[in-house]
Parts: sequence; structure tokens; C-alpha cells
Amino acid sequence: MSTYFHDPQDRESRELLPGVTVRTFWGDRMLLSLVDLAPHAVIPGHSHPHEQVGSVLAGEFTLTIGDETRLVRQGDIYIVPGSVVHSVVVGDAAARTLEAFSPVREEYKY
Amino acid sequence: MSTYFHDPQDRESRELLPGVTVRTFWGDRMLLSLVDLAPHAVIPGHSHPHEQVGSVLAGEFTLTIGDETRLVRQGDIYIVPGSVVHSVVVGDAAARTLEAFSPVREEYKY
Repeated sequence: MSTYFHDPQDRESRELLPGVTVRTFWGDRMLLSLVDLAPHAVIPGHSHPHEQVGSVLAGEFTLTIGDETRLVRQGDIYIVPGSVVHSVVVGDAAARTLEAFSPVREEYKY
Repeated sequence: MSTYFHDPQDRESRELLPGVTVRTFWGDRMLLSLVDLAPHAVIPGHSHPHEQVGSVLAGEFTLTIGDETRLVRQGDIYIVPGSVVHSVVVGDAAARTLEAFSPVREEYKY
């Protein structure tokens, strides 16, 4: 398998929370997570020391970062600094987002 | 302006090379670059110490990383380790890709 090129269709997915399914890819400094969000999925408020950046690939969801809440849609970019609490609420339709973490979240290497 | 949420439509773009236009967003550890590639654009072989990860958002282009060359299409993921030479050749149609660099490429903060 190439270490440089990856087709997500070949990658095992994991359901982290009900309706929150991820496929991950990583280098030495960053881990990419392709996140599929089912309708009405919820990611409760949480934080981690890792910086997290994301771009909505399809659909929309409500994202809270710190004390700001937005409905983010396809094409929107978001940046979650390390240790800032964030949460997600999905509406009636599925959504997909692509996120990167640095440093690598070791627990997401699979 | 929010430091957490960004709409690429509000962001200034820069043409790095003919037909290679980017909009950038950054935190402390990562810089995201939304790259629009015009038909027949070429990014000559180059390298940098920063790790680079990417996901093709639309269209396709030929990507060489080290000694591997692939036609990458919407949804494909790629990882360029630091200091590995890479290059891009775009075909007859425009493409768009989203990339993240770590550490932040200071010269792309604008």
C-alpha cells in the first residue's frame, strides 16, 4: 500500500459515537479524519490539547467552539484551538466533514 | 471576525503560480490552504520541511510524491512527508484541493 496515496473507500471506518463514523489517515505531525455524521447525531462538548481544523464537505451541522455557535455548511472552514471545548449537533440530514489534528491523535490511528 | 469560523468567500485569494490560486486559514500548529487549480496548471517539483496532507475536493490532477505518480480524484487523500519532493500537473478541467501544513507555513499567512 502506498504511504502517500489513500482512497477512503479502502479504509476501515469506526463509529466513535452513535451516528459519528470516521476514517483516519496520518503522517508524523497531522492526522486527517473523514467524519460522516448521521442525521441527529450529537458530539457532546469536549476538548483535547490537539489543535483541530476542519472543512465541511457536504451538508451542514451546528458547531459550537468556545462561546460561539454557528450553522456550518459545505465549504465552511473552522479552527478549534487546543483545549477549547467544542460540540456538534446534526440536523435532519447527514453531513460530512474533513478534519485535521496536530499533533497526531494516537488513539485515532487505526 | 471570528477566529474560529471562516467563510472562504470572504477570504482574499493569491495566485502562487499561474493557475494556482490559494486561500489560507491558520491556527498555531496548522495552516489550511484551499487551492484552486486552473486547467493545465503546473506546480513544479519542490519540497519543504513542513508535512502536507490533502484531500481532493473537486476534479482531478496528476500528483507525484517522491517516486510515485497518481491521478488523484475527488475524495482521494494524500500525505506528503516533510522534505519529500512533490509536483502537480492539471489536465483539461479545473480542480480544487484542500491541504493542511504543519508546522504553519508562515509565508502563506495572508
